[in-house]
Amino acid sequence: MTEPTWLHENFDKAGSSIGYRITRKLDEVQSPFQFIEIYESTDWGNLMLIDGAMMLTTRDNFFYHEMMAHPALFTHADPKRVVIIGGGDCGTLREVLRHPGVLSATQCDIDEQVTRMAEKYFPELCESNHDPRAELLFDDGIAYMANCEPDSVDLVIVDSTDPVGPAEGLFNASFFASCHSALKDDGILVQQSESPLVLLDLIKAMRVEMGKAGFASFQTLPFPQPCYPTGWWSCTMAKKSGNFDFREADARAKSFATLYYSADMHKGAQVLPPFVAAALAG
Amino acid sequence: MTEPTWLHENFDKAGSSIGYRITRKLDEVQSPFQFIEIYESTDWGNLMLIDGAMMLTTRDNFFYHEMMAHPALFTHADPKRVVIIGGGDCGTLREVLRHPGVLSATQCDIDEQVTRMAEKYFPELCESNHDPRAELLFDDGIAYMANCEPDSVDLVIVDSTDPVGPAEGLFNASFFASCHSALKDDGILVQQSESPLVLLDLIKAMRVEMGKAGFASFQTLPFPQPCYPTGWWSCTMAKKSGNFDFREADARAKSFATLYYSADMHKGAQVLPPFVAAALAG
Repeated sequence: MTEPTWLHENFDKAGSSIGYRITRKLDEVQSPFQFIEIYESTDWGNLMLIDGAMMLTTRDNFFYHEMMAHPALFTHADPKRVVIIGGGDCGTLREVLRHPGVLSATQCDIDEQVTRMAEKYFPELCESNHDPRAELLFDDGIAYMANCEPDSVDLVIVDSTDPVGPAEGLFNASFFASCHSALKDDGILVQQSESPLVLLDLIKAMRVEMGKAGFASFQTLPFPQPCYPTGWWSCTMAKKSGNFDFREADARAKSFATLYYSADMHKGAQVLPPFVAAALAG
Repeated sequence: MTEPTWLHENFDKAGSSIGYRITRKLDEVQSPFQFIEIYESTDWGNLMLIDGAMMLTTRDNFFYHEMMAHPALFTHADPKRVVIIGGGDCGTLREVLRHPGVLSATQCDIDEQVTRMAEKYFPELCESNHDPRAELLFDDGIAYMANCEPDSVDLVIVDSTDPVGPAEGLFNASFFASCHSALKDDGILVQQSESPLVLLDLIKAMRVEMGKAGFASFQTLPFPQPCYPTGWWSCTMAKKSGNFDFREADARAKSFATLYYSADMHKGAQVLPPFVAAALAG
């Protein structure tokens, strides 16, 4: 047994850092796309890092995965066909498949190694991978969306890494235009949208790009996410046409348990702090 | 000009760490009570650390100070007399004094050096220190509350460091009983109550101690606070008698600007995520 030590991710763009006390490195692999590491921690279960950036911990990933899935699924009137771009740890897929109305969920992550690592070190996130409604593809998400049949998808969830490296192309108008085309008229796009404190410019720019691609309305929902820079994160929903109409009664009557998400938390997340609202309105 | 370097606070109790990129140490002082350090950072303004723990940054202290003050001030029916225990950086005092109805606000921090450092390195937080309604005492907050005239105070805000060292005595039934006695019948006690993710046991224990001291009802409000462990923090309000009655219309009509707080954010913060609600109900 080695002495625990501290592993820090120093986040250059924000000048801040998040770290965990770790006991040992469990695994690492250099995939064709990125360098994936798994550590065991003293208090947070296992950690996954991609190219040195914290991706998830056993203990706190529920915030992110619940908020990437349930607000959009309870906003769309009847989501049947869901596409997840990225999301290789399979945690978002699991949350999506909790909704009995979903008929198919395709996860398209460019890097099979992320899923292989998740199966081994975060097996609880992969428990729906063999659901007959699940399809796991290991392919380029940009190409997948570009080739998607028009008007065929209810919900696209972009569960990506930061907009550098393999994920860079997932944050621009060209990719969003593919999503727009693939979505049915009442379809919704959800994108993880980084920290509302230090990356507010990125959220704003993303919403502009989504608008260029033809999306009609936007909603940014903040939530805590301790393992990401500043511990405060967000997702942004873009609707192809019309406004957001939260199916509150259905959320209240949901058939599955959640740790962070609830109908009331959803309503709370729809309200932005004044400084965020001002920046996004400007 | 020295090369920027990274300063990490490794938080043993939670096995997690928060850090900032700093350019230089601006000051340090060993007071009779604690070791205070001030650093300049690349992206977060100045930082204050006490005994190695991050206390505040220029950039993100608004979350904490707004949430320690405004929810309680807009819940009490007519808060005139406010006592702040701790709060030596004067940021909570500034927020309290934004309320025109407050006739007096006494800040009692054991450590004068915290205020001296704040005046120098966080002058914006000290801009209300010369308000005629403000009284700054440098004394033992436990003794101050124990000697307070019964039924004389509308609001006690305990803006303390973590419950170790000088602040340990601010988290038990004996201190809460002094607050209970000092408060008028409709008075409210607010205590910073640490991270709802990793210190849920502490929040629960604190509410039990408050109950032993005679408080009738409790409300824990979570909010983001990047510079504290996990980036997700909370305050807990305890009411001497009756239930919490948020003066929503007054909050909507408030005469001052805030960055994080608003009437709607207040309502959102009253809703707890399912895992927190379950733990506090049990």
